Amino acid sequence: MNRYAVILAGGAGTRFWPLSRRREPKQFLRLFSEKTLFEMTVERIRGLIPAERILVCCNAGYRDIVRRLMPDLPAENLIGEPAGRNTAPCIALAALLLAARDPGSSMCVLPSDHHIADSNRFLKLMDAALKGAETLDLLLTFGIIPTSPHTGFGYIRTGDTRATIDGVALLAAEQFVEKPHPVLAEEYLSQGNYYWNSGMFAWKTSTILEQFDRWLPEVLRPLQEHLASAGTTDPEEPRFAHAFSRLPSISIDYGVMEKSKEVALVRGDFGWNDVGSWDALEALMPLENGNLTVGGDIVMHDSKRCIAVSRDKLVACLGVENLIVVATGDAVLVARKDRAQDLRLIVQKLRDEQKDQYL
Amino acid sequence: MNRYAVILAGGAGTRFWPLSRRREPKQFLRLFSEKTLFEMTVERIRGLIPAERILVCCNAGYRDIVRRLMPDLPAENLIGEPAGRNTAPCIALAALLLAARDPGSSMCVLPSDHHIADSNRFLKLMDAALKGAETLDLLLTFGIIPTSPHTGFGYIRTGDTRATIDGVALLAAEQFVEKPHPVLAEEYLSQGNYYWNSGMFAWKTSTILEQFDRWLPEVLRPLQEHLASAGTTDPEEPRFAHAFSRLPSISIDYGVMEKSKEVALVRGDFGWNDVGSWDALEALMPLENGNLTVGGDIVMHDSKRCIAVSRDKLVACLGVENLIVVATGDAVLVARKDRAQDLRLIVQKLRDEQKDQYL
Repeated sequence: MNRYAVILAGGAGTRFWPLSRRREPKQFLRLFSEKTLFEMTVERIRGLIPAERILVCCNAGYRDIVRRLMPDLPAENLIGEPAGRNTAPCIALAALLLAARDPGSSMCVLPSDHHIADSNRFLKLMDAALKGAETLDLLLTFGIIPTSPHTGFGYIRTGDTRATIDGVALLAAEQFVEKPHPVLAEEYLSQGNYYWNSGMFAWKTSTILEQFDRWLPEVLRPLQEHLASAGTTDPEEPRFAHAFSRLPSISIDYGVMEKSKEVALVRGDFGWNDVGSWDALEALMPLENGNLTVGGDIVMHDSKRCIAVSRDKLVACLGVENLIVVATGDAVLVARKDRAQDLRLIVQKLRDEQKDQYL
Repeated sequence: MNRYAVILAGGAGTRFWPLSRRREPKQFLRLFSEKTLFEMTVERIRGLIPAERILVCCNAGYRDIVRRLMPDLPAENLIGEPAGRNTAPCIALAALLLAARDPGSSMCVLPSDHHIADSNRFLKLMDAALKGAETLDLLLTFGIIPTSPHTGFGYIRTGDTRATIDGVALLAAEQFVEKPHPVLAEEYLSQGNYYWNSGMFAWKTSTILEQFDRWLPEVLRPLQEHLASAGTTDPEEPRFAHAFSRLPSISIDYGVMEKSKEVALVRGDFGWNDVGSWDALEALMPLENGNLTVGGDIVMHDSKRCIAVSRDKLVACLGVENLIVVATGDAVLVARKDRAQDLRLIVQKLRDEQKDQYL
């Protein structure tokens, strides 16, 4: 059974504003390495799946940057979404294209905006997950062992072990829950059988299509009909753009995983970090005198526990603590570090004031 | 008796870095108005002295900017210093040039990097000071009533009233003291007869030259000799540059005022502000929700008591307090407001690291 990877590179985030912009979202930034998160995701899965069986789904507008970062990506493996419709429609489309190309295949789905510290462990667990998917017809999901009562993630409640593959337990996934309130998050953390939903999956192509057919036919059928009649998936082709744009915007978690009874969870203990905000960088990069500095000329004087990022400017900090300072060509952010999650409020304000040039 | 004003526009400061640079020091910045401090100084004294009797002394390198800001300045009224030698040499030179041009004149000396809120009061006091100088042969200095135990200013101890002109008391100036230690500054503040040294003076041209001859002949005589032999004061003329550069670097306060017994002080109660650091702007400009914003696109969210200055960039502050944030084309400063005085440490660091492009 041939294995494929479907890398989701579509998201446009604001959590690394002003470095991340509409034209250059997080997965394409060189935040803490010479490589982007997207490139790291591709390189990691290549330990298990060859380049010719790696597919990339992204907004049509990001295709050029994907081609530049992954020059050996076969043209037919690049799926451009004519519009953002969350994860279910693009995963359904990828599965349909794979079913036509290699009906007996299995596939994993990988977001490209996360960091994974231990690639070997990741590959071992992914191999086990794919084996589980291939032999047991399960939908495999990767759960992250929570380290804090984070309210920004969905949680998955697990039950007994359904199977063990190469020493890796596949736990019954009993419930998917949306981003919880803080009190609930504390409860989940203390109970020990809740995991963060990482958005990484593994399944047989035929299995996920059956599940789409059962739980989300309003996504699957229009795509099947379009492929049967027109065939093309060029995002600039009006019929495809029209068909795709009419699909509901829905996540695979909400549309399929929450409903299916055939879901098992692998505990993803491979040093996962969602790099969800500027302060996340502190866990991923070495500090210098307690400060984290990235790029540019940065002068720190009597300053502690700061994150300073500069693209091409001098940044000088004097007597400050616990700040995030980011300087790009046209914008400067100065934020208290424990307010990093609220960056969206700034972005919203810019949107409200129609300062689109900064978005 | 004709009155002249000598405006000192020479200084290169770092206290408004990164906005103030070697090529654009404080007096030439548009910090809190459409007008520079230099222009405001010129306009103010024009209430008493016509343009053709206003002289400007500055580093040779600033002559172009002075000409641009004051297009009606007669060419012969612009004195370019070939080298920075503190205030005594350039004041001596201005007095010598005035003595040749108008021997019976009086003159006032005005730094151009201060802000004065009440121009009418200033003009009234300056008129009284010049009258005192003209009729009593005194050296008049303006003292500022201290509002804090500031350790960045020199102080002047006063005694009895020597004379009263138009209702303005000319107090005996008994002692000039250098920038004091904090304990001493507290003492001066509580004693009530100490004033901050504003660096503004008034005297007859002949009086100051006599005093130079007595207390600072090492500055006066080489200038007299140069003028008698060569004549030119073109700062690019090698003989003048050579003669000027060999003068000691010394302030008029230290070289003359401290030593002379003929000094009287006018209490300068005209809303003087030395605009000595970024935080000084708060007293000079209206705040908005407790923040001071100057120029550019500035977005404040949950931020208090901050000073944000931007030349052409977006500056966004999130959840921060008591910060100074300054963004220029190539540099960004983020400083705790109560550390504004220590900005020189950043500038020194840049100098040490030979990052001259930012100075």
